Amino acid sequence: MAAERPASRSLAELAAFVGGELLGPADLAITGVGGLSDARPGQLSFYANVQYREAYSATQASAVLVGRGEPAAAGRALVRVDHPHLAFARVSQLFHPPRAHAAGVRPGAHVHPEAHVDPLATVMAGAVVEAGASVGPGTVLYPGAYLGEGAVVGAGCTLYPNVTVRERCTVGNRCILHSGCVVGADGFGFALDLSVPEHVKIPQVGTVRIEDDVEVGACTTIDRATTGETVIGRGTKIDNLVQVAHNVRVGPLSLLCAQVGIAGSAELGMGVVLGGQVGVAGHLRVGDLAKVGGQSGVAQPVEDGVVVSGSPAVPHGEWLRTSVLLRQLPELVREVRALKKKLAALQPKGE
Amino acid sequence: MAAERPASRSLAELAAFVGGELLGPADLAITGVGGLSDARPGQLSFYANVQYREAYSATQASAVLVGRGEPAAAGRALVRVDHPHLAFARVSQLFHPPRAHAAGVRPGAHVHPEAHVDPLATVMAGAVVEAGASVGPGTVLYPGAYLGEGAVVGAGCTLYPNVTVRERCTVGNRCILHSGCVVGADGFGFALDLSVPEHVKIPQVGTVRIEDDVEVGACTTIDRATTGETVIGRGTKIDNLVQVAHNVRVGPLSLLCAQVGIAGSAELGMGVVLGGQVGVAGHLRVGDLAKVGGQSGVAQPVEDGVVVSGSPAVPHGEWLRTSVLLRQLPELVREVRALKKKLAALQPKGE
Amino acid sequence: MAAERPASRSLAELAAFVGGELLGPADLAITGVGGLSDARPGQLSFYANVQYREAYSATQASAVLVGRGEPAAAGRALVRVDHPHLAFARVSQLFHPPRAHAAGVRPGAHVHPEAHVDPLATVMAGAVVEAGASVGPGTVLYPGAYLGEGAVVGAGCTLYPNVTVRERCTVGNRCILHSGCVVGADGFGFALDLSVPEHVKIPQVGTVRIEDDVEVGACTTIDRATTGETVIGRGTKIDNLVQVAHNVRVGPLSLLCAQVGIAGSAELGMGVVLGGQVGVAGHLRVGDLAKVGGQSGVAQPVEDGVVVSGSPAVPHGEWLRTSVLLRQLPELVREVRALKKKLAALQPKGE
Repeated sequence: MAAERPASRSLAELAAFVGGELLGPADLAITGVGGLSDARPGQLSFYANVQYREAYSATQASAVLVGRGEPAAAGRALVRVDHPHLAFARVSQLFHPPRAHAAGVRPGAHVHPEAHVDPLATVMAGAVVEAGASVGPGTVLYPGAYLGEGAVVGAGCTLYPNVTVRERCTVGNRCILHSGCVVGADGFGFALDLSVPEHVKIPQVGTVRIEDDVEVGACTTIDRATTGETVIGRGTKIDNLVQVAHNVRVGPLSLLCAQVGIAGSAELGMGVVLGGQVGVAGHLRVGDLAKVGGQSGVAQPVEDGVVVSGSPAVPHGEWLRTSVLLRQLPELVREVRALKKKLAALQPKGE
Repeated sequence: MAAERPASRSLAELAAFVGGELLGPADLAITGVGGLSDARPGQLSFYANVQYREAYSATQASAVLVGRGEPAAAGRALVRVDHPHLAFARVSQLFHPPRAHAAGVRPGAHVHPEAHVDPLATVMAGAVVEAGASVGPGTVLYPGAYLGEGAVVGAGCTLYPNVTVRERCTVGNRCILHSGCVVGADGFGFALDLSVPEHVKIPQVGTVRIEDDVEVGACTTIDRATTGETVIGRGTKIDNLVQVAHNVRVGPLSLLCAQVGIAGSAELGMGVVLGGQVGVAGHLRVGDLAKVGGQSGVAQPVEDGVVVSGSPAVPHGEWLRTSVLLRQLPELVREVRALKKKLAALQPKGE
Repeated sequence: MAAERPASRSLAELAAFVGGELLGPADLAITGVGGLSDARPGQLSFYANVQYREAYSATQASAVLVGRGEPAAAGRALVRVDHPHLAFARVSQLFHPPRAHAAGVRPGAHVHPEAHVDPLATVMAGAVVEAGASVGPGTVLYPGAYLGEGAVVGAGCTLYPNVTVRERCTVGNRCILHSGCVVGADGFGFALDLSVPEHVKIPQVGTVRIEDDVEVGACTTIDRATTGETVIGRGTKIDNLVQVAHNVRVGPLSLLCAQVGIAGSAELGMGVVLGGQVGVAGHLRVGDLAKVGGQSGVAQPVEDGVVVSGSPAVPHGEWLRTSVLLRQLPELVREVRALKKKLAALQPKGE
């Protein structure tokens, strides 16, 4: 069962679609897309980074999306565009429209009589929609997807197998929730009672609100707020195995790479980028368009537009310098020792 | 579908409930609880940390739980208590008692004829209880929860959607297992046979024993022992995406923050606190009441009561000093260079 | 319900089975295996590391697998072998053969009429096999396991509860997929369109190919390729909560410890070992038999056979030296200060 694809498109048609300049045969038939190193003849690829010049030279792709300044290449069709990666995304979407599913509640699905499932939604066998929950048109719930009481999922969403959305949480339109992700588990909130002793659970009675066009990775966990809301802003994309704690607010259009952890009540601005395995401490703000390098630990607020790295995180340039100096530490120790020796030799006798 | 709440309570009633001193109208009607920044009129909040003085001043809460030394505030009802956070937890529990579910095995649940499900337990559609497994009274299995052969879950537990408890593992009373967590997957144990070559699997035939009042976070994994038991002690709380390897023993009342990883056969004492993303190496002990800072890597045993940080982890004070000195490393390098220069100028000619 | 075990074996039989030299009664009945500290009388243990000499002395095991050079011990049966840990694995497998399950599609399973389930496979209640998917003989799908359209799982595999294998991904023979793992979720690929602004999704239309004898840990996520394949090589073992991004290629016989994250298009060679919580940046190669210490961040290619540590990772020996020097940094600062003072004292007046 191969992926479904539309018939081929002419290169001219694709060039026009992405507003590009065609260098090659207008009627070249393009049957799909591929990366430089895995594309086959008949496919379109893209080249956006000189790091991949070798793969570009060797690619079997029949045509390549390139930047505006890229020179013509003998024997290879090119399409010059402003943003080759973006153009590639658009063309790939053309060749791979979202999978269509027959609407309806399938046998083996468990939909509560007081749930509201749009007639144009799809609920597969083994999916569960509880009382008061709501599923919008065009939304697909795969097997094992769970929608708790009063949870709301908008239109055009996909909940892949074994996704959990707990009670009263809300998901906007056109969101993609990958397998195993958990939206709305209890936040990690306890108060120590030394007289027992025990950790007394603080009921986590808030919710999670996921805005439109958000993607949540596999086995990512987004906890419900203690009171109030945990919020994931419009168009933000979250990778796999990410932890978003209670009462966190992530602004729109941010990118959270895999295994990031954000502690309680932290606030991320718009367009923030967190590298893989980054940790962000609780109750602080990471400003708009800030970037955090992989494995960093953000323990202090980060201003808008600043790039930080390291654990604890410092401005990226400083971190780079420190990393270099760290590797020179043995040499520094040797120099200090040599200085001591020379100085001792200079000291007047008897001192 | 709003969260279920009891009718409102008078502030005097609540003050008495938490043993607090009332500063305000005894008959003030409190309808719920909220954080300082999201509480609405009619709600009770708490203020325990001067860091939030601004939010305290601006809160819309009708009354606030404060420390014993907090001065009266004009136009705001206060309740003075020893531990505002703890009192908040108790009051919040009063307003948000655990969700009651009708007992019984629901249609669409799969309960093996040789399983033992207490008549007061709830097994929802799509949950599975295998042969010889046992479910105590008041325990709730949500859809997709799985209880393997001979597994035992005590009374008053909640297994949220898509929880897996593998064969022969045991869970005590009043435990909460959040969605996607996996109890009793095989430990990571192999022996290399270079003659093939292959990694030969060491059968993981031990179990996991989770004691009473434990909470296990979403997508947290607790592996079964190779032989013997992996143990999570009474009252310990584990956040999301935590890894507990085979034969680990976690003492009672510990707190493991999100994305912590504990390697095989490590032992944590009582009341240990591990910050987010901490790693603990195998076969070592972290003593009672020890604390480990976020992102630290514990590669050596930690004595009782000690606080460590860094990767590799060192005593917290040392780590703080080193962090400061690291940021001064460029200055140190400059100073050494200047010293060399001055010293060279002092050297007798011809040397 | 105890684990199933065969009848006891004589120690002579077991010694012959592992090619060992028997020091003790040939007819000693061995009923199972255990670790040094949890083995009970009647059980066989192993001793391979002097670190455990104390446990070895104190063990209640009736017999112990030891190295060839281990002296005889009064009152304890020994079996001398080349590799005690490996011999233990083999004997443990003898006592704990894989759980046999009655073949067939059980009531409550959802198997599409156009799926191909071998008559010798087992599909339990609540498992789902979509159209065009294929399940080989001897393979077991536990409840909540999901096999997408056109996905292929070979012979003798185990898919534990709540495993997801998305469409068109392939799993070889004798693989074990632990609960909650997700194979074939979309890779994290977007192109920024500033004109909207939005992150445009790059369709992830490639697949995942898992070769024979691979084990995938609980809640581990292996993303499908953008185009082409993400590959996990033969005999590689992956622990829990590991992230393998799109287009990664992991060679055969590698070991990936818990919470490792590998970014897009990285390539791992054969027999690579990554410690817990390691991060590997995208688009680089970690060579054959390379080893990476726990929590390290690999930001540069690693040559064959090299051991690296730290974040960013450097050769392990260098990392060790730097770690030691870092702890001496306060002393170094003091020395430099002392040097400055002495030098100032030596300076001619008026300078």
